[in-house]
Amino acid sequence: MTASTIPNDVLCVADYQRLAKEVLPHSIYEYIYGGGGDELTLKQNHSALNAIQLWPRVLNDVTQGTTATTVLGELWRSPIMLAPVAFQTMVHQEGEIATARAASALDVGMMVSTLASHSIEGISECLSSPKWFQLYWQLDRGFNLELVRRAEQSGYTALVVTVDSAIHGIRNRAQRAHFTLPEGITAINLANRPPLPSNSFTPDQSIVFQGMMSEAPTWEDIAWLIKQTELPVVVKGILHPSDAIKAKSIGAKGVVVSNHGGRTLDCVPSAIEVLPDIRQAVGESFTLLMDGGIQRGTDVFKAVALGANAVLIGRPQIYALAVAGAAGVAHMLRILREELEVAMALAGAATIEDISPVSLYKRR
Amino acid sequence: MTASTIPNDVLCVADYQRLAKEVLPHSIYEYIYGGGGDELTLKQNHSALNAIQLWPRVLNDVTQGTTATTVLGELWRSPIMLAPVAFQTMVHQEGEIATARAASALDVGMMVSTLASHSIEGISECLSSPKWFQLYWQLDRGFNLELVRRAEQSGYTALVVTVDSAIHGIRNRAQRAHFTLPEGITAINLANRPPLPSNSFTPDQSIVFQGMMSEAPTWEDIAWLIKQTELPVVVKGILHPSDAIKAKSIGAKGVVVSNHGGRTLDCVPSAIEVLPDIRQAVGESFTLLMDGGIQRGTDVFKAVALGANAVLIGRPQIYALAVAGAAGVAHMLRILREELEVAMALAGAATIEDISPVSLYKRR
Amino acid sequence: MTASTIPNDVLCVADYQRLAKEVLPHSIYEYIYGGGGDELTLKQNHSALNAIQLWPRVLNDVTQGTTATTVLGELWRSPIMLAPVAFQTMVHQEGEIATARAASALDVGMMVSTLASHSIEGISECLSSPKWFQLYWQLDRGFNLELVRRAEQSGYTALVVTVDSAIHGIRNRAQRAHFTLPEGITAINLANRPPLPSNSFTPDQSIVFQGMMSEAPTWEDIAWLIKQTELPVVVKGILHPSDAIKAKSIGAKGVVVSNHGGRTLDCVPSAIEVLPDIRQAVGESFTLLMDGGIQRGTDVFKAVALGANAVLIGRPQIYALAVAGAAGVAHMLRILREELEVAMALAGAATIEDISPVSLYKRR
Amino acid sequence: MTASTIPNDVLCVADYQRLAKEVLPHSIYEYIYGGGGDELTLKQNHSALNAIQLWPRVLNDVTQGTTATTVLGELWRSPIMLAPVAFQTMVHQEGEIATARAASALDVGMMVSTLASHSIEGISECLSSPKWFQLYWQLDRGFNLELVRRAEQSGYTALVVTVDSAIHGIRNRAQRAHFTLPEGITAINLANRPPLPSNSFTPDQSIVFQGMMSEAPTWEDIAWLIKQTELPVVVKGILHPSDAIKAKSIGAKGVVVSNHGGRTLDCVPSAIEVLPDIRQAVGESFTLLMDGGIQRGTDVFKAVALGANAVLIGRPQIYALAVAGAAGVAHMLRILREELEVAMALAGAATIEDISPVSLYKRR
Ligand SMILES: Cc1cc2nc3c(=O)[nH]c(=O)nc-3n(C[C@H](O)[C@H](O)[C@H](O)COP(=O)(O)O)c2cc1C
Ligand SMILES: Cc1cc2nc3c(=O)[nH]c(=O)nc-3n(C[C@H](O)[C@H](O)[C@H](O)COP(=O)(O)O)c2cc1C
Ligand SMILES: Cc1cc2nc3c(=O)[nH]c(=O)nc-3n(C[C@H](O)[C@H](O)[C@H](O)COP(=O)(O)O)c2cc1C
Ligand SMILES: Cc1cc2nc3c(=O)[nH]c(=O)nc-3n(C[C@H](O)[C@H](O)[C@H](O)COP(=O)(O)O)c2cc1C
Repeated sequence: MTASTIPNDVLCVADYQRLAKEVLPHSIYEYIYGGGGDELTLKQNHSALNAIQLWPRVLNDVTQGTTATTVLGELWRSPIMLAPVAFQTMVHQEGEIATARAASALDVGMMVSTLASHSIEGISECLSSPKWFQLYWQLDRGFNLELVRRAEQSGYTALVVTVDSAIHGIRNRAQRAHFTLPEGITAINLANRPPLPSNSFTPDQSIVFQGMMSEAPTWEDIAWLIKQTELPVVVKGILHPSDAIKAKSIGAKGVVVSNHGGRTLDCVPSAIEVLPDIRQAVGESFTLLMDGGIQRGTDVFKAVALGANAVLIGRPQIYALAVAGAAGVAHMLRILREELEVAMALAGAATIEDISPVSLYKRR
Repeated sequence: MTASTIPNDVLCVADYQRLAKEVLPHSIYEYIYGGGGDELTLKQNHSALNAIQLWPRVLNDVTQGTTATTVLGELWRSPIMLAPVAFQTMVHQEGEIATARAASALDVGMMVSTLASHSIEGISECLSSPKWFQLYWQLDRGFNLELVRRAEQSGYTALVVTVDSAIHGIRNRAQRAHFTLPEGITAINLANRPPLPSNSFTPDQSIVFQGMMSEAPTWEDIAWLIKQTELPVVVKGILHPSDAIKAKSIGAKGVVVSNHGGRTLDCVPSAIEVLPDIRQAVGESFTLLMDGGIQRGTDVFKAVALGANAVLIGRPQIYALAVAGAAGVAHMLRILREELEVAMALAGAATIEDISPVSLYKRR
Repeated sequence: MTASTIPNDVLCVADYQRLAKEVLPHSIYEYIYGGGGDELTLKQNHSALNAIQLWPRVLNDVTQGTTATTVLGELWRSPIMLAPVAFQTMVHQEGEIATARAASALDVGMMVSTLASHSIEGISECLSSPKWFQLYWQLDRGFNLELVRRAEQSGYTALVVTVDSAIHGIRNRAQRAHFTLPEGITAINLANRPPLPSNSFTPDQSIVFQGMMSEAPTWEDIAWLIKQTELPVVVKGILHPSDAIKAKSIGAKGVVVSNHGGRTLDCVPSAIEVLPDIRQAVGESFTLLMDGGIQRGTDVFKAVALGANAVLIGRPQIYALAVAGAAGVAHMLRILREELEVAMALAGAATIEDISPVSLYKRR
Repeated sequence: MTASTIPNDVLCVADYQRLAKEVLPHSIYEYIYGGGGDELTLKQNHSALNAIQLWPRVLNDVTQGTTATTVLGELWRSPIMLAPVAFQTMVHQEGEIATARAASALDVGMMVSTLASHSIEGISECLSSPKWFQLYWQLDRGFNLELVRRAEQSGYTALVVTVDSAIHGIRNRAQRAHFTLPEGITAINLANRPPLPSNSFTPDQSIVFQGMMSEAPTWEDIAWLIKQTELPVVVKGILHPSDAIKAKSIGAKGVVVSNHGGRTLDCVPSAIEVLPDIRQAVGESFTLLMDGGIQRGTDVFKAVALGANAVLIGRPQIYALAVAGAAGVAHMLRILREELEVAMALAGAATIEDISPVSLYKRR
């Protein structure tokens, strides 16, 4: 299969997963698909979405309908954005470049990862839709600034700091498949990163607490970062209302409610479950995105109904990229938007603002 | 198998599904069986019914028992009617004619679909039991009137407007089976329909909202229609109490609580779940039918207990038709009525009026 | 296998079911095992028991422990009795005679069915433990009296009238297995029954309501029967508190809370679920038995904790009889009593009176 | 496989179970793995843990983090201890000696069973981490004292009396696998036990109540024991708050909330379910351990959040011992501690004291 033809049995987003499993090397597929620990949270991401029900209304006039919506002051074509996903050349030779082209074609925004396998600048050039930069905090404050400046200069309009994965978590599935980063795939944007101080531990010390976590950011780091840039800063990876409130109070302009696709700590709730509490905590006008398990237009509808301004799409973009390159990603995004339109039309909602908690049926 | 002998291992309604799967071409079976999206609603239609429990009473005298009931002023032999199911010649050469004969033989009413593969008039001639006409709204108001007049003139006693399927929904199963209408099967009753205006879209526009939904009816259309005919109008495809109230307020005489057999929007509740709320909303004397997943006499009992005046039978009629023609449909209907009688007798209910919410056991 | 040796891999009651499936003809096994309709109630009988949890207490002195208990004034060795099960020669040549010998050996009471394949008198002769007679009401009042007199004269100490199965229910599994009563197996105790009046129906009439149910007893019949005998009368097959209250009010001395092993009406609650409500309705001192799904000593414990004075064992007796004759039934009953003793000992309950709702843990 | 190399596909605790199943004789594996009755409680031990969710907090500084905690006045490296598991030479020639060495290497405490296959003293010599002695009460009070004195003299710092298994329970799985103690494996520490009085029973008596339970301890025995020693006494095998209160009131210094790994009475709640009630009953400062189903660092986190001071690890130690001897047990314990550290770090908890009920998300 040449990686730019869409196989004709792809009818829904999940079909790309099935096919990606066939085309990708086992260890890479397992790395992408897998979650933390026993993958209870990974499963929960889907089952929690599935358990939610739409309560449709009939005979409304929706001929003026549109999925357009405004997020952090930007007009988006739909409440859908591509999540930051690292090292995309691992699954397709053009990697993030192909993804950016697809995003542009469909007018869907893209969050570009610190761990992209193309340069921030290069990706930006191919990206005409909303472009946000996702920062993995680096121990050296100055180097973070360097990355931020590059993002500012190459036209990114928001900064997303991911805070839920200071440690990878227990990724047994990826380990079991003996996953390692394929040769030649590197974090090209971190090439100039100052070397880390070498660590040594006393017997009482822990490589987790005194080791890895010593590189992790704290609230102070984020507060500092917010002061260094004009870009709106969004905190990605929050599940607790108190943390959302805290993020807002230090000047963050938004939060991505997320459990990192179930990839870090297992046994945590899915974003969709905690979303209503977080919306209530931060108030109506604060920007909330969410991700985890979105695969259907109805999933997008549910997330919006429960308080999200928009959703992020993680794994599906990488499955589609693996299967059919830019064409695949674009196709996947088109399926999703059309499914959302169908859901809105059949549920009697003409606009994103028409979707609210009242649009959902609560089982009793 | 000649399509008019009842195979001797058919003991219950579900047996017809099993056999239909064997006799029908794969793509046709998949089209009939399938639901929208991930078929969560399709499964829920059955599981929600199964979760309900009867609370039987013993030693009541039921020797005067009967399933007879009055619906919209008509005396019915039982609270069971055939749902509108399109294109029945697709599964059996006689199609709706055979179904009508079976309905007549068992004295069960039939809702004839706009998309019948026989003429409204032809079906009516073979139908001696209650006959209602199901209208799929057509863009041209005048053409709707033509259809209504034909229904009036050929003896239909009620008009059912289906409002939940302006768009087909995301029918991945049917697509995956490459379903298309077999050659020669046409919507014969729409033969004279004025051509649709040709649509063209700006890049911002959506083929869903600005395209398909521009042909969909609105509350105003239904209100207009109600004024054009003496026939009682019933609105089919409502799941929300507010919509039921609205239908009543504009002069509809009844509502079919239905999710279209889980075939349009996925992730919506089953009719049986929302039925009690809708009954409460519209009051005791308004006519409510329901459908979705009815396969056992106990299912009919449950629907009646939760507020339905009668239930519709969708897929089972078409499975029975496929397997054994008119004899199959009649047999299927007889099984269902007898099972209802057994359920009533063993639950101590002599009449349909004896069945109420109190007849059900609520798990705690 | 000679039907009197206990296979050495029988460790628990359920093992007899597994082996019975092997030794019995398919259609007979299916008849015994099967339930009504889709067997939802049959499954629920087990799952409802399994969902209940014991809350054990430790370090109590139980060295004076005993399972003995008093039921309707009789001292029983344990709160366990054999349920009435028809036509036992169908699975073992000695039939009820073997069962009676086993019951006697283990000092367990037996309810002898109207449909026994041995005479009431013959069974009584082999039965030294509590013996109760189960009556299936017969259309002719006088013939019921004849049966009662025979029971009185041959030493039965209580009369159990089964009221939940005027109609067999929809037994698709037995039908599918083409079950019919094997040649030579007859309802010997009904040999002299006066012939039934021949029925004929008008087209409007129902063979359920105007046919079968015309032979069913009503509350008046039971009230009449109670006045005809000195024996305490127990009503078997009640699931609703109001019916239990009614039974008590007309002079019944006890009730068997039962859904007939899930064999008549499907979709009804299990006895264990409704038991607490019924106990509350009839008060502390009224005799309540229950049956349905009892397979473990812990099941007996649970039933007692929720208000039963004793439980009945249906299918297991017939499986054990099929596999190993009298020895099998005795063995099955010994397993059950020992398991009950172990449950009581480990839960810190020395006597049946020590078991109460407080002995159960309620999940939250 | 030589029993001291760690197979390289062991990534988590459960992997040891999988491999143990391969290396152990069937009957021994079944004995270890198995639970009582239908193993409902055994399954519940895992599913109840899995149903609990962590509610992570982000951006906390955890660089001073540690799993260290104080239990009964002892400083432990983590809230993890090895549960008493009998007859360890059954799975590995060095048995408890290897386990003790592993425990010492990882600085994890060990509860040594009365039924150890090495002498109390011998094990103690190899054990440098916390060592507690688990007593199975013996009929002869004096002999209990002898055991206690030996424990005191060889350096054990606490006494654990197991009270939930006066009877083995109904272990059908072990029976079905024909498990018997392999030749040469003996309860070496009970070698000098005075012979039991020979029992004989009248027909009315029960080998459960009048037999086995006559050797079981009562509250009086435990109260007496507490007075005989300076060692703190912990009661193992309590599930009911009232029993925990009672234990505390007679002077016990702690309780192990446990259902004995689901091995004695089936159908009882899991320890994790009853833990919050028991914590509430005994107050904040009383020592509570728990066991049953702990396999992940997140499980330890959950137990601590719900009120446990520490958890015990039963089966995993014996699986790891069987697969890779001392190295296996040490490796298993290291996995568990590291997973706990990762869970704490990702949940924002720097210390064991930071973990509380508030750290958990409650589904709604
Ligand atoms: C292979 C892979 C790589 C990822 N890389 C990043 C990353 O570099 N930065 C980041 O913030 N999140 C990363 N994520 C998390 C995603 O942004 C997103 O939160 C998650 O995938 C959403 O769940 P979904 O995959 O179910 O849509 C990654 C996820 C996957 C599957
Ligand atoms: C093959 C098929 C064709 C249908 N055609 C129509 C139709 O023409 N008009 C309509 O209102 N509903 C139509 N329906 C929906 C049914 O009337 C009914 O609402 C649904 O099938 C009930 O669910 P059940 O199949 O579980 O009984 C159709 C359903 C099926 C399965
Ligand atoms: C094969 C069979 C025959 C039965 N015959 C009778 C009967 O003659 N009279 C009666 O009252 N109940 C009869 N029952 C019902 C039992 O008495 C009892 O209510 C039921 O079997 C209890 O459920 P269990 O089988 O799960 O223990 C029968 C049940 C079975 C399985
Ligand atoms: C093979 C085996 C032997 C055991 N022996 C003892 C024992 O000698 N004393 C005791 O108090 N508990 C004993 N237990 C129970 C454990 O101490 C512990 O309560 C239980 O195994 C915890 O559950 P887990 O196996 O799921 O971790 C034993 C458990 C197993 C599996």
